Amino acid sequence: MRSVIETDALIIGAGPAGLWQAFQLGLQGIRAHIVDALPEAGGQCIELYGDKPIYDIPALPVASGRELVERLLAQLRPMQPAFHFGRLVSQLARRDDERFDVTLDDGMRFVARFVFVAAGVGAFVPRRLMLDEARAFEGRGLLYRAGDLSSLPGERFAVLGDGPEAVDAVVSLARREQASIALVHRRDSFKAEAASVARLRELVAAGRVQLVIGQPVGFDAATDDAARLAALRWLDAEGKVHALAVDRVIALLGISPKLGPIAEWGLALERKQVVVDTASFESNVPGLYAIGDINHYPGKRKLILCGFHEATLAAFAAAQRLRPDERIATLYTTTSDVLQQRLGVGRA
Amino acid sequence: MRSVIETDALIIGAGPAGLWQAFQLGLQGIRAHIVDALPEAGGQCIELYGDKPIYDIPALPVASGRELVERLLAQLRPMQPAFHFGRLVSQLARRDDERFDVTLDDGMRFVARFVFVAAGVGAFVPRRLMLDEARAFEGRGLLYRAGDLSSLPGERFAVLGDGPEAVDAVVSLARREQASIALVHRRDSFKAEAASVARLRELVAAGRVQLVIGQPVGFDAATDDAARLAALRWLDAEGKVHALAVDRVIALLGISPKLGPIAEWGLALERKQVVVDTASFESNVPGLYAIGDINHYPGKRKLILCGFHEATLAAFAAAQRLRPDERIATLYTTTSDVLQQRLGVGRA
Repeated sequence: MRSVIETDALIIGAGPAGLWQAFQLGLQGIRAHIVDALPEAGGQCIELYGDKPIYDIPALPVASGRELVERLLAQLRPMQPAFHFGRLVSQLARRDDERFDVTLDDGMRFVARFVFVAAGVGAFVPRRLMLDEARAFEGRGLLYRAGDLSSLPGERFAVLGDGPEAVDAVVSLARREQASIALVHRRDSFKAEAASVARLRELVAAGRVQLVIGQPVGFDAATDDAARLAALRWLDAEGKVHALAVDRVIALLGISPKLGPIAEWGLALERKQVVVDTASFESNVPGLYAIGDINHYPGKRKLILCGFHEATLAAFAAAQRLRPDERIATLYTTTSDVLQQRLGVGRA
Repeated sequence: MRSVIETDALIIGAGPAGLWQAFQLGLQGIRAHIVDALPEAGGQCIELYGDKPIYDIPALPVASGRELVERLLAQLRPMQPAFHFGRLVSQLARRDDERFDVTLDDGMRFVARFVFVAAGVGAFVPRRLMLDEARAFEGRGLLYRAGDLSSLPGERFAVLGDGPEAVDAVVSLARREQASIALVHRRDSFKAEAASVARLRELVAAGRVQLVIGQPVGFDAATDDAARLAALRWLDAEGKVHALAVDRVIALLGISPKLGPIAEWGLALERKQVVVDTASFESNVPGLYAIGDINHYPGKRKLILCGFHEATLAAFAAAQRLRPDERIATLYTTTSDVLQQRLGVGRA
């Protein structure tokens, strides 16, 4: 039995709103744990516009999504949040003592006084094949993340997809001398950088990579071992089905947001968003706050800078709830010794 | 008769909230006029902590007040707001056509569709002498701003105050060969930079500046011209009144915020703050919005980043009111051609 982590604050989502939530909780003297489905911080800012410019963050005339996240992480450093990446929240339940039991998909468990849902449009998880047969091979013959391809077991690989991740995976696999490699996509057109696509074309021309223009329709197990993948069946443009002998299928079909179990937590929702009070950004479940793109209130606009405000008021509300006998004053980082100490910039 | 400026948006206050209001209105395609009592943008950020660090602007781990304002001004540039500095709003009245008549203290007049009050703790105006006799000489024998001292008429000057502005004014006046100069303050202690105070002490020791330790209690007019200042009367520590012959008194007693006529505009107030709706940051007067430190709503915290959120939703609300038949969508600066054009970063 794994131990349970007790914490005042658990933040679901490490996008800009979740990161700022941790910063503001830090100013209130509350250390946070942050869970995110992605392997790194940033959420949509990294997944959807990592290299694209954002012009409406106040006092940052222009920054890429990645730059914005790096700046927030640098600012957040003194608050030392504990990050738990690559994990999804699978269960959340309110306890009799008004705290929350939170379980992650890898079994990690928390007891949290407050939960801050900063989950944006949902957890970013790899888009899956809509084939029932596929499920039996997930995590073994069928993978949804490229990972380290140099040491992946197998000799015959099929990569599915047309984006940069798929093209790069093919180019990377082609470095393995023993490997036989197919790239499967329904059209002969790829959305990766010009240099990567050119390299792909060279590999195809050299017979090193087989280009399969068609759609996956099924998986065949080995006749002697039902757990072992033997072939990918695919449909060509004329409607004919073929079988491609493979050990591993690496499906890199992009990332899609998934709201997940939030819908089951007894939260008041409106248009699939969590309804919150604008004084505290608390949901109808006491102690459970929702900030950023996932919440809803009159006038709501899904903008990063609004998430910063929401996280800030939520931190004040949580601090007030944690210290009910104290009036939580508005202190200023410019003048407050307490805040400067928490920021690690206090006078010695 | 001066002409009247017609505008969709008039912003009162050029602090961070007012500047961000102009930026967000610009994103909505609405150009703004901005009025501020100070001679430059920045409000409290410049007056109170121009050189002091701020640590809680999202994605700006540290910035001085001045740096923050410079960044906002740079970001705002493509929106080309019209600034009107050094002016106070003296009158505001709602018209029959639901627009506002706004008059400034120098007589400048506007007809505005929307007014955004971003006046912080009030207009920063020079602190005045609490002497009835002083009023008769204001703007002539008695000045409340240092301005250009090299060309100020007169030969006998008295400077009032103990801050950096007062000390610097004395040092500057001492460069005029013909000038006789007195520095008047109730204690022999000055709050300026060490080098400036040292220079002041040298000038006093050299007999170039007279140090008067006492309090101003009255003004005497010339016997032959009631409009011309002849002497400043001052009270010493023993309670004795003296007369100091002067042509000009320059009172540099600091800046103090003044809420001014806002209290007379029929706005619902709570604890002297303008009560607003959190969906639009509109006051009880339709078309009049209040953002930043001057507003009040449940959960309100007087933080710069909250003002950014408030200004943003106010801009959406005003745009919606201006274009009632259109649903004002949330566009993103990263992807919207329209916004990129307004930002001057659009593709050619």
